[in-house]
Amino acid sequence: MSANGPCSRSAVAVATGLNKATVTSLVNELQTRGLVKEMGPQHAGSVGRPGVALGLDGSRAGALGVEVNVDYIAAIATDLAGRVLIDRRIGFDAMGSGPDRSLDELARMVEKTLADLDRLGVTPAGITVAVPGLIDTTTGTVVFAPNLGWRGVPVAGRLAQADLARDIPIAVDNDANLAALAEYTSGVAAGTSDLVYLTGEVGVGGGVISGGRLLGGADGFAGEVGHVMIDPSGERCRCGRVGCWETRVGLAALVRMATPDRAYGTGPQLVRDPEERLAEIEQRRAGGDPRVDAALAEVGRWLGIGAAMLINLFNPRVIVLGGYFARLADPIIPAAQRELARLGMSDAFERCRFAASDLGFGAASRGAAGVVVERALSDPTGISIRMSPSIGVIEGTPTA
Amino acid sequence: MSANGPCSRSAVAVATGLNKATVTSLVNELQTRGLVKEMGPQHAGSVGRPGVALGLDGSRAGALGVEVNVDYIAAIATDLAGRVLIDRRIGFDAMGSGPDRSLDELARMVEKTLADLDRLGVTPAGITVAVPGLIDTTTGTVVFAPNLGWRGVPVAGRLAQADLARDIPIAVDNDANLAALAEYTSGVAAGTSDLVYLTGEVGVGGGVISGGRLLGGADGFAGEVGHVMIDPSGERCRCGRVGCWETRVGLAALVRMATPDRAYGTGPQLVRDPEERLAEIEQRRAGGDPRVDAALAEVGRWLGIGAAMLINLFNPRVIVLGGYFARLADPIIPAAQRELARLGMSDAFERCRFAASDLGFGAASRGAAGVVVERALSDPTGISIRMSPSIGVIEGTPTA
Repeated sequence: MSANGPCSRSAVAVATGLNKATVTSLVNELQTRGLVKEMGPQHAGSVGRPGVALGLDGSRAGALGVEVNVDYIAAIATDLAGRVLIDRRIGFDAMGSGPDRSLDELARMVEKTLADLDRLGVTPAGITVAVPGLIDTTTGTVVFAPNLGWRGVPVAGRLAQADLARDIPIAVDNDANLAALAEYTSGVAAGTSDLVYLTGEVGVGGGVISGGRLLGGADGFAGEVGHVMIDPSGERCRCGRVGCWETRVGLAALVRMATPDRAYGTGPQLVRDPEERLAEIEQRRAGGDPRVDAALAEVGRWLGIGAAMLINLFNPRVIVLGGYFARLADPIIPAAQRELARLGMSDAFERCRFAASDLGFGAASRGAAGVVVERALSDPTGISIRMSPSIGVIEGTPTA
Repeated sequence: MSANGPCSRSAVAVATGLNKATVTSLVNELQTRGLVKEMGPQHAGSVGRPGVALGLDGSRAGALGVEVNVDYIAAIATDLAGRVLIDRRIGFDAMGSGPDRSLDELARMVEKTLADLDRLGVTPAGITVAVPGLIDTTTGTVVFAPNLGWRGVPVAGRLAQADLARDIPIAVDNDANLAALAEYTSGVAAGTSDLVYLTGEVGVGGGVISGGRLLGGADGFAGEVGHVMIDPSGERCRCGRVGCWETRVGLAALVRMATPDRAYGTGPQLVRDPEERLAEIEQRRAGGDPRVDAALAEVGRWLGIGAAMLINLFNPRVIVLGGYFARLADPIIPAAQRELARLGMSDAFERCRFAASDLGFGAASRGAAGVVVERALSDPTGISIRMSPSIGVIEGTPTA
């Protein structure tokens, strides 16, 4: 029904080859779960007594996507039709807090959002957690997150222990992969079957959609662009190696060059929501601080150098710039394009463009919610909705 | 039948849902084309009068894969069962000869191989040409082949004009992509759904199998590993840019370091089949020439640096080393592994191994023939076999 719009029980029977008694029984079950509703008599194209049109009821079940990143924790809740119900983010020093305190804070964010969903009469079908690192998705464990300093952290297990989510399934996945899925389904390059998404955060992750599918690799670790060595004579990275791309284009690199008096650290007074940092950088740029323009040009140049590698290897049509890259796209993209034009080798370079994401720092949690929706729709039998009345949709904006 | 082994007309009717008259008519057509043969009565598991088992007759139709590379031209012909019938290679200065003379020489190779197939009673179902460069596969045109110095060369059109192949369909594709497919179907890492193949030639191409599918990208240009900038302070590449990976690991780089008196040029006396060059390098290594060991260690080190990038981006289980890398795997792989261990960031590095291809310089033409087989089996109606008797199979070894 989701692909074909509302249709009658008879039409479902014809399309699936199931007999009508079976269809009636299945529809009853989905109605009981609050996932299907009757939408009135169906007329178009039918002969004889009109059937009753059945439609997907996406408003009563929801999906929760949360993200823990270096300097913030975010949550986005949607209904199964993809409408955003809740969108919030808080600045948080995950880098300095360690896994235990970070997961406590994440659990509080989850608890608060679940309570809000409850008030909205929406039953969550699942929770997916986005983390900037290498994830063992089968166990929901962070194998290694260089910028958080986490190794072997069982995120799904810890959240399950917190007992907020009770029977709600919890998954964990890489932030950039989830954000790439969000871009592919609903962002500025939606439907572009070959795209690369770059997270502009302290770390720079990549999610690759190739031929319409997320590139996973053997362990789901593909697209780890931030730690490709791009400057052999460069600086030491938090991963322990030298010259990684993110030491040139990550948010910490920009802050160090543009506002050296505000550089990253792990003390509480040094941690701020990335939006605050960016507001300060924009303010100083407007005030004519030459360090800011120079820093943005340098980030753009290294972004172009890395983009040339990505085009050679993945041949995408669009490189979607997320996170802070999107916020500062106006100065950064022209600098990146100039470098790319210098390094371009084939038509593939001319056919590829940069695009600034409009999903902001919420792209990963948006994608995380999208994965929950996708799973729920492909197997709705796991969902069980309380039959209290729905009280409408709150279009969300980020709030603390 | 190919997936299930011999079976009767009745069994085909049951499996496909077609009625028996239709199956009989289709089988007659395939028998006329020489693609199906009766293999005797079928007993196993059947009730009542036994049907006649039908089997795929792959020996009467064949596939031709050819390759033009910097310093050789190669051809491999197989039957539709994948058995190699003809395998030949000649040293040829494609780099210095330009597209016209190179395509004349390629046409002669095709003509000779087609004549041999004719003598074997095998009808070619198609020809695929492998070229080390970016290919527009819809028109069979080489868009850009940096190491051949070709731009916009209509290879398929030129071969069609030569009128040797008459009605045989001609396709053109990237050498590394074709070799990767050959490795995935029949090489040392056969069945490994995440692998990267590297062509060890003058140029270094890459073919990526990810999740069991060839990674194409938006234009089929993905996997262009040789021109990723890996050494910003390095040498100028034939593509015009600086520091490309192949300036560090290509065969020309090895020859320049190991046997500087034999370095590459475009004069006829400087061009030799790569096997000859490798024989000389091995001979000097056995003679204790320290330049050779130093050169191999240096190539291995840069191979490890590039492999780290490939593991971060593609997360493969195996990196298959083709061409000259395979021939000199003993000294090269340990040096590459040492560098990789130094750069490794996650379990993905430990779980990935190097493997030396056993398909030699024939991998791309083998893959090219494989693509023809694949297409012929998925739509056999395009094949029309002369009904002369088959005269057996010649197991090929490379011959001039």
